[in-house]
Amino acid sequence: MENSNGAKAHPPRTRRLGIWLVGAHGGVATTTAVGTLAIRKGLAVPRGLVTELSDFSALDLAPLSGVSFGGWELRPGTWREAAHEIQDRSGTFKESLLGAVEEDLAGFDRWVKPGLAAGCGEAIGALAPGARREHPVDFFARAVEDLARFRREARLDAVVVVNVASSEPPPAVGLLESLTTWTSFAKELKRRLPRLPASVVYAAAAIEARCPYVNFTSSAGSNVPALAARALKNGVPHMGADGKTGETWVKTVLAPAFLARNLKILSWEGHNILGDGDGRILAHLENARAKLQDKDQALRRILKDPAVHSRVRIDYVPSLDDWKTAWDFIHFEGFLGVKMILQFIWQGCDAALAAPLILDLARLVEFAQKGGEAGWMTHLACFFKNPRGVEENGFEAQFERLRAYVRAHVQNRRNPPLASSALFRYRR
Amino acid sequence: MENSNGAKAHPPRTRRLGIWLVGAHGGVATTTAVGTLAIRKGLAVPRGLVTELSDFSALDLAPLSGVSFGGWELRPGTWREAAHEIQDRSGTFKESLLGAVEEDLAGFDRWVKPGLAAGCGEAIGALAPGARREHPVDFFARAVEDLARFRREARLDAVVVVNVASSEPPPAVGLLESLTTWTSFAKELKRRLPRLPASVVYAAAAIEARCPYVNFTSSAGSNVPALAARALKNGVPHMGADGKTGETWVKTVLAPAFLARNLKILSWEGHNILGDGDGRILAHLENARAKLQDKDQALRRILKDPAVHSRVRIDYVPSLDDWKTAWDFIHFEGFLGVKMILQFIWQGCDAALAAPLILDLARLVEFAQKGGEAGWMTHLACFFKNPRGVEENGFEAQFERLRAYVRAHVQNRRNPPLASSALFRYRR
Amino acid sequence: MENSNGAKAHPPRTRRLGIWLVGAHGGVATTTAVGTLAIRKGLAVPRGLVTELSDFSALDLAPLSGVSFGGWELRPGTWREAAHEIQDRSGTFKESLLGAVEEDLAGFDRWVKPGLAAGCGEAIGALAPGARREHPVDFFARAVEDLARFRREARLDAVVVVNVASSEPPPAVGLLESLTTWTSFAKELKRRLPRLPASVVYAAAAIEARCPYVNFTSSAGSNVPALAARALKNGVPHMGADGKTGETWVKTVLAPAFLARNLKILSWEGHNILGDGDGRILAHLENARAKLQDKDQALRRILKDPAVHSRVRIDYVPSLDDWKTAWDFIHFEGFLGVKMILQFIWQGCDAALAAPLILDLARLVEFAQKGGEAGWMTHLACFFKNPRGVEENGFEAQFERLRAYVRAHVQNRRNPPLASSALFRYRR
Amino acid sequence: MENSNGAKAHPPRTRRLGIWLVGAHGGVATTTAVGTLAIRKGLAVPRGLVTELSDFSALDLAPLSGVSFGGWELRPGTWREAAHEIQDRSGTFKESLLGAVEEDLAGFDRWVKPGLAAGCGEAIGALAPGARREHPVDFFARAVEDLARFRREARLDAVVVVNVASSEPPPAVGLLESLTTWTSFAKELKRRLPRLPASVVYAAAAIEARCPYVNFTSSAGSNVPALAARALKNGVPHMGADGKTGETWVKTVLAPAFLARNLKILSWEGHNILGDGDGRILAHLENARAKLQDKDQALRRILKDPAVHSRVRIDYVPSLDDWKTAWDFIHFEGFLGVKMILQFIWQGCDAALAAPLILDLARLVEFAQKGGEAGWMTHLACFFKNPRGVEENGFEAQFERLRAYVRAHVQNRRNPPLASSALFRYRR
Repeated sequence: MENSNGAKAHPPRTRRLGIWLVGAHGGVATTTAVGTLAIRKGLAVPRGLVTELSDFSALDLAPLSGVSFGGWELRPGTWREAAHEIQDRSGTFKESLLGAVEEDLAGFDRWVKPGLAAGCGEAIGALAPGARREHPVDFFARAVEDLARFRREARLDAVVVVNVASSEPPPAVGLLESLTTWTSFAKELKRRLPRLPASVVYAAAAIEARCPYVNFTSSAGSNVPALAARALKNGVPHMGADGKTGETWVKTVLAPAFLARNLKILSWEGHNILGDGDGRILAHLENARAKLQDKDQALRRILKDPAVHSRVRIDYVPSLDDWKTAWDFIHFEGFLGVKMILQFIWQGCDAALAAPLILDLARLVEFAQKGGEAGWMTHLACFFKNPRGVEENGFEAQFERLRAYVRAHVQNRRNPPLASSALFRYRR
Repeated sequence: MENSNGAKAHPPRTRRLGIWLVGAHGGVATTTAVGTLAIRKGLAVPRGLVTELSDFSALDLAPLSGVSFGGWELRPGTWREAAHEIQDRSGTFKESLLGAVEEDLAGFDRWVKPGLAAGCGEAIGALAPGARREHPVDFFARAVEDLARFRREARLDAVVVVNVASSEPPPAVGLLESLTTWTSFAKELKRRLPRLPASVVYAAAAIEARCPYVNFTSSAGSNVPALAARALKNGVPHMGADGKTGETWVKTVLAPAFLARNLKILSWEGHNILGDGDGRILAHLENARAKLQDKDQALRRILKDPAVHSRVRIDYVPSLDDWKTAWDFIHFEGFLGVKMILQFIWQGCDAALAAPLILDLARLVEFAQKGGEAGWMTHLACFFKNPRGVEENGFEAQFERLRAYVRAHVQNRRNPPLASSALFRYRR
Repeated sequence: MENSNGAKAHPPRTRRLGIWLVGAHGGVATTTAVGTLAIRKGLAVPRGLVTELSDFSALDLAPLSGVSFGGWELRPGTWREAAHEIQDRSGTFKESLLGAVEEDLAGFDRWVKPGLAAGCGEAIGALAPGARREHPVDFFARAVEDLARFRREARLDAVVVVNVASSEPPPAVGLLESLTTWTSFAKELKRRLPRLPASVVYAAAAIEARCPYVNFTSSAGSNVPALAARALKNGVPHMGADGKTGETWVKTVLAPAFLARNLKILSWEGHNILGDGDGRILAHLENARAKLQDKDQALRRILKDPAVHSRVRIDYVPSLDDWKTAWDFIHFEGFLGVKMILQFIWQGCDAALAAPLILDLARLVEFAQKGGEAGWMTHLACFFKNPRGVEENGFEAQFERLRAYVRAHVQNRRNPPLASSALFRYRR
Repeated sequence: MENSNGAKAHPPRTRRLGIWLVGAHGGVATTTAVGTLAIRKGLAVPRGLVTELSDFSALDLAPLSGVSFGGWELRPGTWREAAHEIQDRSGTFKESLLGAVEEDLAGFDRWVKPGLAAGCGEAIGALAPGARREHPVDFFARAVEDLARFRREARLDAVVVVNVASSEPPPAVGLLESLTTWTSFAKELKRRLPRLPASVVYAAAAIEARCPYVNFTSSAGSNVPALAARALKNGVPHMGADGKTGETWVKTVLAPAFLARNLKILSWEGHNILGDGDGRILAHLENARAKLQDKDQALRRILKDPAVHSRVRIDYVPSLDDWKTAWDFIHFEGFLGVKMILQFIWQGCDAALAAPLILDLARLVEFAQKGGEAGWMTHLACFFKNPRGVEENGFEAQFERLRAYVRAHVQNRRNPPLASSALFRYRR
C-alpha cells in the first residue's frame, strides 16, 4: 500500500477511505458506489458533491479515488444485481456506464455482510424473509469485527459508517432516553429480546469500532445518551438525522425568506409521492412516522408559529420508482391581509440526490476525526432534516455554518491554533 | 432637527415622514396609502413590513402613524377613485375598509401634482393623453418646489421620494453614462428636446430638494453619474433599482441553494403573466426591456455560469388584474448527470407585495439621512432586483447585510462610534 | 296566483319554482339563493348554468325570475348572516351586491325550518349542539307538511328538494339495501332509534310530498330500494349522487381521452385541500369515506383497469375557506413504455361551482315531472360524481346524453310523441 | 391489386405496408421505425396506437409485422446513428432494446434518399449545409421514382408518405391558393426559382405516385387546391395538418367541457418549452408561426369567443431535448363572476407521442385507399391540430367521428353498401 512505507511523506491526496453502508444494496448505497466508480474512471463529474465546491479545495479531504465500499444488508444478491435493478427502473445510470464499472463494483461484494434482522420493523423484515435471526448482542460483536476487517483487509486509513437503510418504526417511548450509560445500553443489548431498534445497534458498533457514524435516515441511530457519551470518549464524530435531499431542502430554503419579509405563513401542505423500496416501506405508517415528523418539524422549527397549519404526506406510487415527486402548497398572508400562494413541484431522483451527500458526509466526518474532533458534528446541520445539537433549520444559515467551519480550518492549517475552537468539541 | 434641541419637545416616535410617490394613483402607491391609513386605524396589522420585525424595533424609525402621502401623477382623478378601481378589480381591500379610510385618503389629494409627460415613452404617455406638456427644465424647478411645499405645509420632518411608476423605455445607449457632472446634466435638461427619461428628472429633483430617493422601478432614476455625485454632495441617501417583490425574490432565494449543493442549473425559464396598468405597459417591448433584464440578471449574477440557459417572459393577461402569476421551470443536473426539475408557481398581488416594502424603504432611507449617511444605500440590496453598488444578488446574503446594518446601528446607539463605519459612505 | 285562473293561457315563463335546500344556510345553498336574486336584479349574468346554454332555450324550463327558496337547517341564524359570513371569508360576492339582495334574501327566512339532528353523524351534529332532537318519524311528518306549506304559501307551481348538506357517515352495511318496500322503510323509521341516515329521511319526505329530489351530496339520499319504488309510484323524478363540480369533473373530462389514445394510466393521485364548513366535516374520516369513494370510483369506472394505482385525498386547510384546491398527478405510459406526466392544479370556489348546477338540476327535474317522467333521471348523469342507474362516467359522453334528451324533447314539442321513449321511465 | 386475384396467395393480415417519412432521421421518424421493430420482436407492446384499440380490430388494417420504412432526409447519417443520438439525449429507448433492432433498422437505410433542400427555410437548410441543391422539378421527378422503387424493391402492397419534418416558414400570402390547377402548379414548379415550400413538392410527388399522404407538420403539404384536386383524381386519400400529440390535445379535451358547463374562459395562456431539433427550428419565428397558429386556432375554434384572451408560446430549452413541457393557465369565470383557475403541466416525450399516431395514420389512409376512398380524410380530424375540411376541434367529438367511421366500415364488411356513404368522398 502506498501509504504504508515509511520513506514517503504520505501525500494527503492518497488517503484511503472506506464507506460502510447500512442497507448496502439499497438505491442510495448502490448509486453511491456506482457513481464513485464512474467519477474515478472519468465517466462522470462529481456533480452534487458539496465537498467539490472550490471553498472546500483547501481542506485536506480524502480523495474519491481512494474510496472503497462495504456494508450490511438483509437481502441476498450482489451489488451488480442491485445496480441493474436501479438501471431498469429509474434509468439513473446508462447501461454503458454500468458496464464500465461492473467489475470494480463486484470487487466490493466481498465486504457486504448480513445485516441485523431484529428491530427494524415488520415491513423491512419482510424484505428478507429468510434472513438469519442473529441475536443483537452477537451481531454487535460481529459488526465491530466486520468493520475492523474491512479496514485491515481493504488497507484503509479510515472507515466511516453511514446508515442509508429505510426508516424504522420508532422504539417504545422513553426507552432510548433511559439508556444514559454504556452499561445500561449493554444490559439492554443482552436481554433475551432487546427492545433496541436495529439502527441503534449499528451505530453502537460503529462507535465501538471508532468509526465515524452518519445517520442518513430518520431512525434513532446514535441519538441515545449512552452512545453520544461513548462517541465523545472514543473520539468518534457522528451526526444525523435524516438526509435533507429534496422537498424538505427546498422547504428550508424558502421558509426563512417568508420570515425575513414578515409574510405570515397560514398553511403549508406538502404531499410527497414516490415508488421504490423506500416508498414501499414508508407506505407503512409506523415506518413513516419518524420521517413525517422530521419533514414537518424542519419547517415548524423555522416558522416558530404554533398556529401555522402544516401537514406532510408521503404516499406510495409504485410507477414512480425512485422519482420522488412533491407538491407543496404555501398559503401566506401579506399586506392588508391579502392571501397569496406559492406552490412548488419537485421531481427528483432520490438516490441521485442522496449519493453525493453520502460522499460529502463521509469525507467530512473522516476529516473531523483526523483533526481530533468528536461528538455531534453540528457544522453538518445543512445535510439533515433533523440535525442533532443545533437549533438552526434554515438551509442558508446552516450552510453558512459549514462555510465558517471550512474557513476556520483552512485558517488553522496556515496558522496552527493555539487553543481548541469553541465551535467544536475536541477529543480529550 | 427636533432631537438636537435641548427642550426635547418631540419624542422620537412622533417624527413625521412624508412619502412622495412618482405614479401617485397607480396600484402600488394607492395600496401603500390605503394600507398605511388602515394600519393607523387598527383595521390591519403591518404584515409584510420588514421594518416591523423585532430586529428593527431598536432602530429609531419614523412611525407609520406620522406618515403623509403626496406625489406626481400624469392621469386625472383622485386617490379615492384609484382605490375604488383597485377594489373593484383585484379585491385587495374590502369595501368596508375602504369606506373607513376614504376621508383621510381624500386629504392627501391636495399633495398630488402633475407629473412629467415627456420622456416616459409612448405607452405611458398614452395613459394621459391630455397631460400638460411641461418642458423638463420647468418641471424640474416646479418639482423641487412641490417637495419643499409638501414638507412645509404638511409640517413634515422629512420627505422621501419613491418612484413607483411603470417602467420606461431605456434612453439612448451611453447618454446617461456621459452625464458625469451636474453641469452636463443641467445642459441636457435645458436642451430644446432633452433626451432624459422622466425618471431621471424626478430623481434629480428629489436629490436637489435633499429628499432621499428610492427607485422601485427598472427605470434609470438616480443611476446617472452626475446624480450620484450630487446625492453625496447634498447628503442624500438613494437606492434602486426595481423592487424585488415576487417571482424574482423567490428566484434569488432558491438559486444560491442550488450553488451550495453543487447542482448545475441547466435551464431556468420564468414566465410571468399579469394584467393591470403595469401589465398593459409591459406589453410594450421597449418598456419591458429593462425589467426583463433586471429579472434575468438577478439570476445570472448568482449563477455566474455563462452557459446557463435562462429566459424571462412577461405577458399581459388582462383578466388577472393585479394578480401576477409566474411559472418557473428549473432544470438542473445532479449526480451522474441525472436531470431533475423544480417548478414553482407564484400567485401574488403585486401592489400588496410592493406596498409594505415602500414603507420599509422610506423609513430606512429617512433613518439613514438622519444619521448622516448619503449615496447608494447598499445595505438595502435585498429590496431590489438590480441593486446598485453591490455584487450580491442572493436574497439571504442580502438580508444578512441588512441585519448587519441594523446590528451596527443598534450597537452605535449604545456605544457612539469613534469613527465612521467602512460599510457606509457618510457625507463629507 | 297568476297561473291559477283558467282564463289565461299559462305563459310558460311565469311558472313559479320553489327550491327547498337541505342545509339551507350552508355555503352552496346561500350562494344559490344570493346568486338567483342577483341575476333576477340584473346584477349578474347566469354564468355557469348549463340550462342557459342556447341548446336549452327551446325547453320550457321554469324561469329564474320565479324561483323561491326554503329549506331545512340545523344551525340557528338567518340567510343574511350566512351570506355575510361567506362574503367575509371567500369574497365570492361583493359587499355592494349583497346589500342589493339582502332584503329579498331575508324574505326567504320564513321558509327555513329545523333540520333532522339524528342520523347525520357526530361531526355534523356538533355544528348544532342545541338542535332539537326530534324523532325521525315526527320529523318525517312535519317535513312533508313543511314542503306542502312552502308550496301553498309561496304560491309555487312546484317544489324541488335538493340536498346540499355535508356528507354523512355511511349507514350500516346492507341496511338500506334491505329496505325494499315502503312498509319496511316505515317500520325502520318508527323504531325507537332508527338506523336511517338523515339524508334518507329527507329524501323520503320529498318523495312522499311528490317533490322531485336531487341528492347533491355523497350521502345515501333516495338510493334505497323502497324510496326508488315509491318515487316511481308517486311520479317523482330523482337523481344523485354527489355533485361533480371541480376536480372530479376535470378527471372525468380527461380520463376518456387517455383511453381514446391507448395511453395506459399507471397512477392517478388526486390531492384535494379545502377549508370551510365542508372541509371541516370532511376532516372526519367517516364523513369523507363516501365522498372519497365517489371521487375515486368516477375515475376507476372510466379506466376499467383494476391494476391502475389511484388515490384521492381530501385534507382540511382552514385558510383556504371555500377555495378548494386540488393537485392531480397523472402518470401514464406511452409508446415503447415511455412514462410521461400530466399534472393539473384546480383552484375553484366550491359554492360558486355548485350553485348554478343546483339551479340547473332543480329546473330539469321540475321539467321532467311536468312531462310525466319519474324515477332515476339518468340523463342528468353529467352533474354527478356517482350517477345512479347509468354506467357512463366520462363527462363528454354524459353530456351528450343530456343533449340527446334535450333534442328529443324539443322534437317532441314539435311532433308530439306517439309512444314513450325507451330512454326514460315514465309514470304509469 | 393482389387481393383481387383468385389465387389469394396473400391473406389480408400479411399485407405489406411501406411508410415513407419526410425527415427520415428526425426524432419522430426514428422512434417510429425503432418502435415498430421492437413491437414486431415482442420487446414492446403497441401502446399509444389508437388502431390497436379493440374497436379497430374488426377493420382489415395492414399489420405492423409487414411495415417497412424509407424516406427523404437532408442530413447525412444512418438510422442507427439517429437512434443512438435519441437514446443518448432523451432516453426514450434502452440501449439493450436498440441493440436488438439495430440490424433490422440498418436494413431500411437503403430506402433513405436525399430530401429537397430548397423551400424549407434557412433554419432547416442550415441543418444540412452540404445538401445537394437539386432543382424542385428534378426532385419531383426523382421523388415519384423513389416511391415507385421503394414499393417495387421492398415488395410492398402500398406506400404511404408521412411528413414529419420540422415546420417550414409559410409561403408568400395567396400563392398556394392561386395554384388551382395542376398546370399552374407544374408551371410554378418549373420556374427558375420556384416559390413552393418543400412540403408542397413532397406532397405533390406522393399524390402523383398515388401514395396516400399525411401531413403531420404545420407546413402547407397537400393543402393546395391543385393538389387536393389531383388527389381526388388520382384516388389518393390525404390529410393534415400538424399532429395533435400533447399540449394541444389536452387543450382540445378540456375546452369543450368549459363550454358545456357555461363557464366563460377569460384567458388561456399556453407556454411550451422544448429542446431537440424541433425546438431548435421552432426558435426561428418564421418556422414557429404556422405551428403557433395551429395551436391557438384549435382552441379558438372551440371557444368561438373572439373576446377570449389566448396566447401560445414555444421556447427553445436545449436541456429538455425531446421532453416537451407545457404550462397552461386557464382563467375562467363562473357564477356571480367569480374568477377561478385551472392550470396544467404537461411533460411528454414528443417523439414517443407522435410515433404511434404515425403508424395509426399510415394504416388508416392505406385502408381508405384500399376501399376506394380519396381526398381529405375528415374522419381523421382527431389526429390533427388543424384538421382540413372539418369544423370540429373538440377531441371527443372528433374521436366520435372516427368511431362512427369504424362502425360504418365494420357494418359494411358484413352488409356491403348499396351506395357510397355521404360521409366520404369516394373515387369516381
